[in-house]
Amino acid sequence: MSFDSSSVLAVGTVAFDSIKTPFGSRERIVGGAGTYIGWSASTKGVRTGLVSIVGDDFPQEELNRMEASGMLVEGIERKAGGKSFFWSGSYHMDMNGRDTLATELNVLADFNPVIPEAWRCAKWLMLGNIDPNLQASVLDQLDERPNLVVLDTMNFWMDIAMEPLKAVIARVDVLTINDEESRQLSGERSLIKAARCILEMGPRYLIIKKGEHGALLFHNGADGVEYFFCPALPLEEVVDPTGAGDSFAGGFISHLASVGQTDFESMKEAVVVGSALASFTCESFGTEGISTIEQAALNARLAQFRKMTRWEEQRVEVSL
Amino acid sequence: MSFDSSSVLAVGTVAFDSIKTPFGSRERIVGGAGTYIGWSASTKGVRTGLVSIVGDDFPQEELNRMEASGMLVEGIERKAGGKSFFWSGSYHMDMNGRDTLATELNVLADFNPVIPEAWRCAKWLMLGNIDPNLQASVLDQLDERPNLVVLDTMNFWMDIAMEPLKAVIARVDVLTINDEESRQLSGERSLIKAARCILEMGPRYLIIKKGEHGALLFHNGADGVEYFFCPALPLEEVVDPTGAGDSFAGGFISHLASVGQTDFESMKEAVVVGSALASFTCESFGTEGISTIEQAALNARLAQFRKMTRWEEQRVEVSL
Repeated sequence: MSFDSSSVLAVGTVAFDSIKTPFGSRERIVGGAGTYIGWSASTKGVRTGLVSIVGDDFPQEELNRMEASGMLVEGIERKAGGKSFFWSGSYHMDMNGRDTLATELNVLADFNPVIPEAWRCAKWLMLGNIDPNLQASVLDQLDERPNLVVLDTMNFWMDIAMEPLKAVIARVDVLTINDEESRQLSGERSLIKAARCILEMGPRYLIIKKGEHGALLFHNGADGVEYFFCPALPLEEVVDPTGAGDSFAGGFISHLASVGQTDFESMKEAVVVGSALASFTCESFGTEGISTIEQAALNARLAQFRKMTRWEEQRVEVSL
Repeated sequence: MSFDSSSVLAVGTVAFDSIKTPFGSRERIVGGAGTYIGWSASTKGVRTGLVSIVGDDFPQEELNRMEASGMLVEGIERKAGGKSFFWSGSYHMDMNGRDTLATELNVLADFNPVIPEAWRCAKWLMLGNIDPNLQASVLDQLDERPNLVVLDTMNFWMDIAMEPLKAVIARVDVLTINDEESRQLSGERSLIKAARCILEMGPRYLIIKKGEHGALLFHNGADGVEYFFCPALPLEEVVDPTGAGDSFAGGFISHLASVGQTDFESMKEAVVVGSALASFTCESFGTEGISTIEQAALNARLAQFRKMTRWEEQRVEVSL
């Protein structure tokens, strides 16, 4: 089991979450962007080298479980005497908004990601949502620029570190943010105008995540800004959306790593795979959904996406 | 020019609107659900018999313009000495919310729709958003039940006339409401659960309109509730969303009238046509967008919908 040219290098938190939703609550369950990215890629059969930091409060059996499913965990530093990053949040009734109740950085305060030597040849790099200066330092450590660099970030970094964030955004291929963040980053209200502005900052692709309202992929094509839309699957119950964005990102990059391509058509497929994987995460608390998917269930869900978005084209346009 | 078996019978307001948006404002421009439905159907080349009421303040040249584009206007009562229905609203910065500044019922207070004799054979009935008791009275006046009855309504009627509303909903084929209204009507938060509940109230199809987030079509199929999703077209600028839902409804029913079918596949096509027509309405104030569409422009827009929602399926599902 080793890191190779189809493996994903992922940097992101491995942590504890306490989560309250209208459907229940969980105390100190395993979470973190890196964790969700890794589980999502594992489901796609893609190996992930995880770079992160935990305290000695983090259960070894959880790392064993991740390793058993195909993740490489030797890049996760275990800091003796330290406590793992902890986040606590409470979701509103509509599950789109949430309040942060607590953020304890703990070992994350001193995180300085060191990429294991054997992983510096990475072709597929997923920069999870951490300090943009650390995201840049990861890029600096690689032997050469990967085939594809995907960067996730959030409004927090736009508020306190916009310049370092813009500097690292200029170095990546794909940026993933939500609709409000795209407006904050661009100063534009219309998502098309926001996308045009952000694509000029450097990335070739922009993904705007809209939660239950789906995801938009933008690309600067020959005829200007092109876009692709993938809905979110309507779910019987959104139990806990924590990690949905990271599951999306993990599914997105691992689809591209598995087909070995980064063109617009492959990106569209990757958005659908990411959306399908995110839907499993939303159906249970924590990683319970994303860490237990049978491949047949994923295939069935991908078929649902196809079914819900297809119509007979010809008659629509001919009948005018 | 006469009403026939492929014509749409539409009942709804023909009125004046004063509209304020972050992009500008317009005073007393022509609006009303019936107006938008009629323009949308005309663009699809489908004749609409409009049943409505106006005061003698309503410009005859506007009725002439509607007639010239293929609408039948002899069902629009002109009440001497009366004033036309007037609505005034102000849209929030995000264009999803709006405040009503004024609602003057005027002649609408005494509206008692009388269906012209020649239109009582209607096969395609669009009941625009008016008092559910009046919607029921229209159904009662028809010679026989139409092929298809589509009903639009809003939270206002759920607040003050839930029982008459439920009674008329039980008599229609398709109900169109927005996401919050589907929650109010069903008492369910999840849209799938809301749809299941509402489909049990009578309609065979339910359309949940989500504005800039697209539209969901639900149907009780052999395997339970089936659904289809159509996104809204991302627009450079949403100038004025007033009438978008009515333009959608007009496009929806006129596609079905033009193909003469009411199965699930035809309904999907109709949702796409409705969404495309609604996008034109949003690009200008009032009926300016919807009343001036060239067929080539509509076809180009339908092609955009196809392009933004298609991906190469096979590789996504095989590559697992």
